[in-house]
Amino acid sequence: MTLLNKDMTLCISLSARPSNNGTRFHNHLYEALGLNWIYKAFAPIDLAQAIAGVRGLGIRGCAISMPYKEDVIALVDRMDPSATAIDSVNTIVNDAGVLTAYNTDYSAIAQLIARNELDPAASVLLRGSGGMAKATAAAFRDAGFANVTIVARNESNGRALSDLYGFHWRADASDSTADILVNVTPIGMAGGSEEHALSFSEAAIAAASVVFDVVALPAETPLIIAGRAAGKTLITGAEVATLQALEQFVLYTGIRPSAAQVQAAEEFMRAGTA
Amino acid sequence: MTLLNKDMTLCISLSARPSNNGTRFHNHLYEALGLNWIYKAFAPIDLAQAIAGVRGLGIRGCAISMPYKEDVIALVDRMDPSATAIDSVNTIVNDAGVLTAYNTDYSAIAQLIARNELDPAASVLLRGSGGMAKATAAAFRDAGFANVTIVARNESNGRALSDLYGFHWRADASDSTADILVNVTPIGMAGGSEEHALSFSEAAIAAASVVFDVVALPAETPLIIAGRAAGKTLITGAEVATLQALEQFVLYTGIRPSAAQVQAAEEFMRAGTA
Repeated sequence: MTLLNKDMTLCISLSARPSNNGTRFHNHLYEALGLNWIYKAFAPIDLAQAIAGVRGLGIRGCAISMPYKEDVIALVDRMDPSATAIDSVNTIVNDAGVLTAYNTDYSAIAQLIARNELDPAASVLLRGSGGMAKATAAAFRDAGFANVTIVARNESNGRALSDLYGFHWRADASDSTADILVNVTPIGMAGGSEEHALSFSEAAIAAASVVFDVVALPAETPLIIAGRAAGKTLITGAEVATLQALEQFVLYTGIRPSAAQVQAAEEFMRAGTA
Repeated sequence: MTLLNKDMTLCISLSARPSNNGTRFHNHLYEALGLNWIYKAFAPIDLAQAIAGVRGLGIRGCAISMPYKEDVIALVDRMDPSATAIDSVNTIVNDAGVLTAYNTDYSAIAQLIARNELDPAASVLLRGSGGMAKATAAAFRDAGFANVTIVARNESNGRALSDLYGFHWRADASDSTADILVNVTPIGMAGGSEEHALSFSEAAIAAASVVFDVVALPAETPLIIAGRAAGKTLITGAEVATLQALEQFVLYTGIRPSAAQVQAAEEFMRAGTA
């Protein structure tokens, strides 16, 4: 029996194609911490009306996914620097009717750069030019990295992103090497058309010291497997996904769960997507 | 563990002072019928934004309680005759973005009048002049009753209601009798200032054939206890409350649960308010 009651605090997500990840991660932590909270995913009919509902219903927190991360900027009251950094929002916190927008993808990547003590003098090859590539590029730029090459087949997208942060652009990186390899394309993603492909060459992996794949599913992408075999420092998309969800949880509740509680919630989340 | 998932259909309630009744009644039936639905009570911050949220989030159903039953009329797309009958809404159904307003209090009372085969030629004393008294008076009027006296201490409210339906008004009914006695005041309500009071005189009860108390808590009000002792036909507020919630459930889901399922949900609801 679902023991809902009238006093429960609601957090939601808005996405054109919701997954169960946030629902499972957040609800598991609410349960583990004994919070009278509940989390529900929505595919909104109308973004502006959905955000009005966040205000009107007193919904505490709201995750924002594709394709709403930019459009929602006009609907909030305040932008946290994490969202301003990339003009993209993935989290809204409702403080008594004042909506503040954050980007926990950006802050998760920034934390992982710091936690792994990546050297700002290192060279970086960053594949991708979408919204998540922008968050990743901004986090590297803000961590002091200058020698970054954006690798993107689409020239206008690639140039736009590299120009934004004073980086270089290349259409193809099959003969390039760098200290840090970062994949922010769907290459290696479960169920994608390039599920079994490697986003960087074997030679590039051999020459690098750090391999970072933002793809979260599977937890072990071909790139991560190859990097692990080559003994490289690894940063996985699963780490990004968990860390950004954790940062959302902390923003909503003001509570930072223990590492064990986060791990249990992550395992529960992954069991739902298997 | 609360097994929420992304595909769940949400129904809500909007009330300045939510109870757990709807939450428990509806969620119990969702569970019993294996529906992937969930029900959550809200005390809205802003009614118009909350209704925008119903549209924007694709919320299927929305119960409306005090003090929003009239104000919400301007925010819906269509009025069902049950709501038009008393210019008051307690239920909204969202059909692909089209919001239709109903009043299941009115339809529950109308059903109970029919089910108990109350005679339209009978005389009626109806105590009360608030929103629920209006729903009750309208249901009697629409069932063909003409000999109805509204009993209300407040003359302007009492006259307004009696004039609306072509009924009589009296400020005091302590020396009146009628075939059907109907209480739609808080007299006899648990926790109220007149919790132990009887809304009609012993003589009036003795002279009546039907005793109808719209007060739902306790299930056995002093009036119902007295009516039972005197062997009268009884209609209780608990019946009204369950029937109106059941009608909401049917409007939202299109499913009519069995009598046993309804009884189990009612008992679960009552266990939460004890």
